[in-house]
Amino acid sequence: MKRIAIDMDEVMADTLSMHLELINRDFKDNIIISEIQGKSILDVHPHLKDKIYTNLKDPSFFRNIKVMEHSQKVIRELSQYYEIFIASAAMEVPASFTAKYEWLKEHFSFLSDNNFVFCGDKSVINADYLIDDNVKQFKRFSGKGILYTSSRNIYETGYIRVNNWLEVREYFMK
Amino acid sequence: MKRIAIDMDEVMADTLSMHLELINRDFKDNIIISEIQGKSILDVHPHLKDKIYTNLKDPSFFRNIKVMEHSQKVIRELSQYYEIFIASAAMEVPASFTAKYEWLKEHFSFLSDNNFVFCGDKSVINADYLIDDNVKQFKRFSGKGILYTSSRNIYETGYIRVNNWLEVREYFMK
Repeated sequence: MKRIAIDMDEVMADTLSMHLELINRDFKDNIIISEIQGKSILDVHPHLKDKIYTNLKDPSFFRNIKVMEHSQKVIRELSQYYEIFIASAAMEVPASFTAKYEWLKEHFSFLSDNNFVFCGDKSVINADYLIDDNVKQFKRFSGKGILYTSSRNIYETGYIRVNNWLEVREYFMK
Repeated sequence: MKRIAIDMDEVMADTLSMHLELINRDFKDNIIISEIQGKSILDVHPHLKDKIYTNLKDPSFFRNIKVMEHSQKVIRELSQYYEIFIASAAMEVPASFTAKYEWLKEHFSFLSDNNFVFCGDKSVINADYLIDDNVKQFKRFSGKGILYTSSRNIYETGYIRVNNWLEVREYFMK
């Protein structure tokens, strides 16, 4: 059985929308995703650094992020034909550990927590495929990188790209 | 550069001694490590199940465990010649995430947290070697398993065995 490793933020979890929701609420701002295409929020709005870091340090931030559309049903389907591991670069945000674990247990209860991995450098992941929105993680990954489209990677080329979970399904079930 | 993955409990951290210390303190008992050779505490003392589970759910339990003798200096030396990743089956005890992270940052501050991995099934670890006290983790691991002696594994055969960190040094630096 081939193995697929799947990133959480911006792939299974709509983390960027959560950041924008809190920023727009707390600063009475109206930043929209189309403004930051090809960049990070901080590239476009460096003054929001403290706010974003405060969000990331709040354990409840990751607990309440919305699930990416169709990710549950597609991952459930893939899990019948592939071994699924969840691989989050959670070491970047230690405050997120418990919330990420609980989020996975709630929204992806059909997966075993034996198959959850919180790491930093994903070159340590032994899998045939890695679905991730961060091209940096593909550099030393030993399997095949599948780039999940997020605002910061839209200008990246040279990778197999999937724009949503229905395209992930199409790629792996074809 | 070859890569070594290293387990935490019973390899870098003297977890069993911490359990015995708390049991002996709270139950005015005198269980010693030689009583439980080849077994787990619960095999010998099943009535301690609740106490042990209570310990494991206490976030401070993992924070205060003693570092295995010589592990710091040997891992520091190995890190000059090998890529070191720390691979803990922390998913078994979600309450331990933060304490384990802080413990590593305190006692192994020369390692990058990019190289920390909290997982369940270690077949997901991409490394040339895995130093672990749990033979179950070697079954599907793609590299070479190095069995670090702990009380529960003393009767296991068929693995390269190291009894302490000086023997780890000898194996990898010879």
